[in-house]
Amino acid sequence: MKQIIILIFISAVTTSFSQRDFAKDSTMIRNIFNESLEKGHAYEDLRSLCKDVGARISGSASAEMAIHWGKNKLESYNFDKVYLQEIMVPHWVRGTKEEGWYKTPDDKLHKVNMLALGGSVGTNGTMSGEIIMFQNREELQEADPAKVKGKIVFIAQPMDQKMINSFRAYGACYPIRGHGAVDAAKKGAIGVIIRSLSLSEHDHAHTGTMKYEDGVKKIPAAAISTNDATTLEKIIKNTNGTLDFIFEMNCEKLPDVKSYNVIGEVTGSVHPDRIITIGGHLDSWDVGEGAHDDGAGIVHSMEAVRLLLSQKYKPKHTLRVVFFMNEENGNMGGKSYAKIAAEKKEYHVAAIESDRGGFSPRGFDCDGNEENVLLLQSFADYFEPYFLHHFKKGYGGVDIGPLKDEYENIALFGFVPDSQRYFDFHHNHNDVFENVNRRELHLGAASIASLIYLLDNYL
Amino acid sequence: MKQIIILIFISAVTTSFSQRDFAKDSTMIRNIFNESLEKGHAYEDLRSLCKDVGARISGSASAEMAIHWGKNKLESYNFDKVYLQEIMVPHWVRGTKEEGWYKTPDDKLHKVNMLALGGSVGTNGTMSGEIIMFQNREELQEADPAKVKGKIVFIAQPMDQKMINSFRAYGACYPIRGHGAVDAAKKGAIGVIIRSLSLSEHDHAHTGTMKYEDGVKKIPAAAISTNDATTLEKIIKNTNGTLDFIFEMNCEKLPDVKSYNVIGEVTGSVHPDRIITIGGHLDSWDVGEGAHDDGAGIVHSMEAVRLLLSQKYKPKHTLRVVFFMNEENGNMGGKSYAKIAAEKKEYHVAAIESDRGGFSPRGFDCDGNEENVLLLQSFADYFEPYFLHHFKKGYGGVDIGPLKDEYENIALFGFVPDSQRYFDFHHNHNDVFENVNRRELHLGAASIASLIYLLDNYL
Repeated sequence: MKQIIILIFISAVTTSFSQRDFAKDSTMIRNIFNESLEKGHAYEDLRSLCKDVGARISGSASAEMAIHWGKNKLESYNFDKVYLQEIMVPHWVRGTKEEGWYKTPDDKLHKVNMLALGGSVGTNGTMSGEIIMFQNREELQEADPAKVKGKIVFIAQPMDQKMINSFRAYGACYPIRGHGAVDAAKKGAIGVIIRSLSLSEHDHAHTGTMKYEDGVKKIPAAAISTNDATTLEKIIKNTNGTLDFIFEMNCEKLPDVKSYNVIGEVTGSVHPDRIITIGGHLDSWDVGEGAHDDGAGIVHSMEAVRLLLSQKYKPKHTLRVVFFMNEENGNMGGKSYAKIAAEKKEYHVAAIESDRGGFSPRGFDCDGNEENVLLLQSFADYFEPYFLHHFKKGYGGVDIGPLKDEYENIALFGFVPDSQRYFDFHHNHNDVFENVNRRELHLGAASIASLIYLLDNYL
Repeated sequence: MKQIIILIFISAVTTSFSQRDFAKDSTMIRNIFNESLEKGHAYEDLRSLCKDVGARISGSASAEMAIHWGKNKLESYNFDKVYLQEIMVPHWVRGTKEEGWYKTPDDKLHKVNMLALGGSVGTNGTMSGEIIMFQNREELQEADPAKVKGKIVFIAQPMDQKMINSFRAYGACYPIRGHGAVDAAKKGAIGVIIRSLSLSEHDHAHTGTMKYEDGVKKIPAAAISTNDATTLEKIIKNTNGTLDFIFEMNCEKLPDVKSYNVIGEVTGSVHPDRIITIGGHLDSWDVGEGAHDDGAGIVHSMEAVRLLLSQKYKPKHTLRVVFFMNEENGNMGGKSYAKIAAEKKEYHVAAIESDRGGFSPRGFDCDGNEENVLLLQSFADYFEPYFLHHFKKGYGGVDIGPLKDEYENIALFGFVPDSQRYFDFHHNHNDVFENVNRRELHLGAASIASLIYLLDNYL
């Protein structure tokens, strides 16, 4: 049965393929790339977002500034409508105190580079306790509570270097950051520290979201740099005595606050009711400048539509650029956007997200039905001159994900850039404008613009 | 006729393809990548070459140190033979003085970031003259000599941002750097300055080799940073009066000196007489640390063979790692290597070069006959899990190029990494270890090791 369906889909795509004007499409795509590489705005727009606004965690004053920035920027380009969509977002603040040390059995203190995980409670003054190390989450979950009680859990698991796609290595360690505090608290621990989620050995700690569970004690959670984690692990393995961890953090969760998704629309000339959403997230963590995560996605989305308009292209579908708020710690922007769309009975046909950095483009993932995947794959030849080769079933993105719950047949596309350097910068002080390359960023914007053009014509 | 030959080649490749053990080969390649990503030496070896030796222009003391370094490193791995191959190389020195300014009509001085081009004569004290700007080499070649005589030529042509492969943009501007001084001198100019060959706007000047011609006056030649060139071009275009350029350089060419290619061999277990050469160039320019150009190629080559040996793999062919000397300004290493090989009647079947930086691997070029190109393309499936997709007829490399003059049917392969960032670092102060990413470098070494393995079995 499945085979028959595939055959029908292939036939459908082939038919539409035979109706394509490959030369005309290729010329349009070439012009899009030329405009982006020679006269693109993405890099300077990103500089402005990083330097004029900076880091912009949900609920902060800088997130408000980012909304202002986004609305102004969209208004400066030729969108038909620019507006804000009100949402409520969590408001967690890092506070003013954030320091950690470990103490070896011979009483020597070593200061670590440490960041509280987003959402963590504070230590309520100085907290100290004996370290108990686990190699991974499973080992912790199977531990004897008597051995963990009153201690500070250290989960040493590194991201797996062998993974070629670095997001797979991240995905495998993600639950440690997200659920380590709950796992540890269930065994009676008073705090938890994890090895930063990064594939490189360096001195910056990487933050990121974590969760508590109703009925489980909330204990403070922090990440230490990979260099610190490697050293600490070695010392623990080579020491018979016990080591203490001492830290102070006064981070806290405040009441939710009002915030906004920022939206810019170009009305479709043929199907104004059919919407293609293109987005990234406007919020970032509160360290660095959110350059790759996800300033790149913000400027990619806005620039992709600007590139199309620069070619005097009149989109058939309504193109809606969305700067989602609060992807990092709650996804209230993405969830609200999908919910409001369904309530308004909007007709959403496709969505594209860029949230994997501003690196050299490799292709697109498609989270959709087989027809959608085949359609994406039928575009491969258009992208060959630009060295994009990845067109596969895969993941769309956190922000656009909730649309799938409301629209069964929507085609979600995730922009896939080269992933090797992403976790050098992810959620840390190094995620700054200087670590983004202009050409790589602009090739990404042109790739997304080209996909929009093809979807607008062949969806 | 040609079609028949292609068909025969396809048939030959298909036959050999059907004899392949895809699962066994894939497992070997997976193990090579695992070893490289988890326990690879390339990054630390590159750190050592960059920090313990540093920049290493042919004929310098640091080039001698690099030879010492290379021999020691090869001896530390399990090569059957390590030896030096004596060659003569040019010896150009930058000297102690290198400064440039332009002076606007209202007598304001602007200092520029400038580097003498490699091979240039000095200015013999301070040289100054009126600037005459040309947009490109052709404009200069067609100029009225009366208008150029006694002036300093500025060739303003930028690299073409529209090229997707940055090496194509470089290739188009390469003659400006190489022949600009001759072109300008033929018109009576006293000096020439060019816009640095880079795709990014920044403050570092990029050096590189240039040539003089017998019977044409040798005039000093330098490159100014892209930022300086952009500003200077704007001022010239917006000014009615004349601008002067003032510079001093005491670079000079000294007599040729003795130097060496450094060679490490693993003797073939089945065809010890058939040689596969794997190489990069040991020399660099005298600024930065020669990290991407071509420290990456040096450690790629050595590490690729180490990776194979780490898997207890016994190569059938003799694998010869060559650290070529003097690629940058004469290619005496590459030329001598091919000449000596032919004199010794060695049997060379293939050569692989890495000289396009240590970035994320994209594939390989093949400079060979159609059978060789088809063979390379038949390997594509092996590389798909590692995101390598480029397997095309193309360029091998400067060092291995001369082998083709001696061995008509040799298969030359050029390693192709992502090219977007290469000309940010090429020949300038920024080409340092810190700008190389460990995972990108190690994926490259594993890719080259995998190609060697496949060639060793299916060539």
